[in-house]
Amino acid sequence: MNDLVLTGDRPTGPLHLGHYFGSLANRVRLQDACPMYVLVADYQVITDRDVPGEIQRNITDLLLDYLAVGIDPAKVTIFQHSAVPELNQLLLPFLSLVSVAELRRNPTVKDEIAHSSQQAVSGLMFTYPVHQAADILFCKGTLVPVGKDQLPHLEVTRMVARRFNERYGEVFPLPEAMMGEQPLLKGLDGGKMSKSRGNAIALSATEDETAALIRRARTDSERLITFEEERRPEVANLLTLAGLCLGRPPRDLAEEIGDGGAAVLKGLVTEAVNEFLRPIRKRRREHTEADVRRILAEGNAVARERAIATLEEVRAAMGF
Amino acid sequence: MNDLVLTGDRPTGPLHLGHYFGSLANRVRLQDACPMYVLVADYQVITDRDVPGEIQRNITDLLLDYLAVGIDPAKVTIFQHSAVPELNQLLLPFLSLVSVAELRRNPTVKDEIAHSSQQAVSGLMFTYPVHQAADILFCKGTLVPVGKDQLPHLEVTRMVARRFNERYGEVFPLPEAMMGEQPLLKGLDGGKMSKSRGNAIALSATEDETAALIRRARTDSERLITFEEERRPEVANLLTLAGLCLGRPPRDLAEEIGDGGAAVLKGLVTEAVNEFLRPIRKRRREHTEADVRRILAEGNAVARERAIATLEEVRAAMGF
Repeated sequence: MNDLVLTGDRPTGPLHLGHYFGSLANRVRLQDACPMYVLVADYQVITDRDVPGEIQRNITDLLLDYLAVGIDPAKVTIFQHSAVPELNQLLLPFLSLVSVAELRRNPTVKDEIAHSSQQAVSGLMFTYPVHQAADILFCKGTLVPVGKDQLPHLEVTRMVARRFNERYGEVFPLPEAMMGEQPLLKGLDGGKMSKSRGNAIALSATEDETAALIRRARTDSERLITFEEERRPEVANLLTLAGLCLGRPPRDLAEEIGDGGAAVLKGLVTEAVNEFLRPIRKRRREHTEADVRRILAEGNAVARERAIATLEEVRAAMGF
Repeated sequence: MNDLVLTGDRPTGPLHLGHYFGSLANRVRLQDACPMYVLVADYQVITDRDVPGEIQRNITDLLLDYLAVGIDPAKVTIFQHSAVPELNQLLLPFLSLVSVAELRRNPTVKDEIAHSSQQAVSGLMFTYPVHQAADILFCKGTLVPVGKDQLPHLEVTRMVARRFNERYGEVFPLPEAMMGEQPLLKGLDGGKMSKSRGNAIALSATEDETAALIRRARTDSERLITFEEERRPEVANLLTLAGLCLGRPPRDLAEEIGDGGAAVLKGLVTEAVNEFLRPIRKRRREHTEADVRRILAEGNAVARERAIATLEEVRAAMGF
């Protein structure tokens, strides 16, 4: 398999179970199948907020989350965006290959603009799909795990690669989307799972924190527990969470609980989640900040070498 | 004097007398007064055209033009945009500080869009003022020689510097415009002087080429030569050219020619220009392509060191 996977996260806070089942589990599987670059998109933290916040702390926590779930730096290159200047130099030729009209039409940018906490649309937000093209193409990524909402971005990357190749000669592969990074889980209040809403179980949560969060989860007043996603979304979501943690169909769990009501359901979910997080918590404790620093330094060096090689190719193709 | 001058050119073709009197002469004077960075904006060649063309040849010719007019690489840092990846990394934070609305309003971008040979406005053209901010601020330039049409760009640079400092702490000086880079000369056909219109005398033109160009210059049918810029713009322009080359007021030259007509005028202009270009041609012959490569390699190294230092400051200020 000659694929190279490019994926990553913005270091804006701790990862939670939604991240795990939506994408991290997939990475852990993929890391044995093909080479992978995991981008810590530190610079892009300022795409939709004014200040980067506790960026250093967030980067360390993100790496500890990665290590805790079993992402193996011996197999995967983990690197920081801001540590690879050569990656960003690709922006100049790439920006020349995309029209303002095409950027304006991008539905994901439109949507992110709608949800941004900033007052005005920044040039960074507007050109974001081109930055993502640089992130993917600098390492010649061929496979990009994406959610449905990220598909238009990947289309821009493919367009940039195609136009560059047509104009200057074959340099970049056209990356393929790897669908499936979908949110399988809703938050414990029934809304979108998000750290900032306090409705998510962080991978770094203690047993007590986990129990407290699930105790506060929204359910309904029916005593008989059933798995009905449409009619009883909150209950179904808790069953899904337990099912994912236990590797069992949520419908079976509902039958077992029967008319035990919300209390039994929550007890089972708490047990399942804490059992599931136990080895993850253990691996997290085995790693230190010094490990993180070393892993990033090594990953940054590998990514930078790759970026320098690609930039050389780009410059040569363009006649510089 | 603690100023640092940032100036430069896009390597799109040989420099001509318009460039000399409009900006190069100023650089030669300034290089003794304060440190100066001269940017060979090779990447930005694709801002308003699809392909970079004979970029390597153009860069060499540009450097030979610089050396010929007396720009001294011992005093001035001459460097290539594409050789300084750290400069371009500044684009990310800078793009986050400018809104799309502000970019859209920029009159110079509007104007350049109108004159572009490209079919659609590219992301590169649209974000051009931010690229220029990176070009100026990476070396903490404080003085930027500009023509009137470049003033709005410099305003964006000042805005970026001000907003960065406000948000993250004092890193960048607010650069000042140094007005005066105006076209003093029109082309030999009375239109805007431009290599592509064949109405400009290149600094690298031979005596014969120079004579031929001036012979074809537009004049009028009045025998008595007078300096009247409004009524007789072509004749006035030739007198201005000769005056600049001889360091004499054009009005005095007109009086000397009297009723000698266009033939005498053109003879005098040809003589003046060739006399003026003689030492420039001589210095050009004293330099080789190997000199150019060495000068660029040295300048690139100095600029890169500077860019790395600034990027470190930027990253530290942002908390990376």
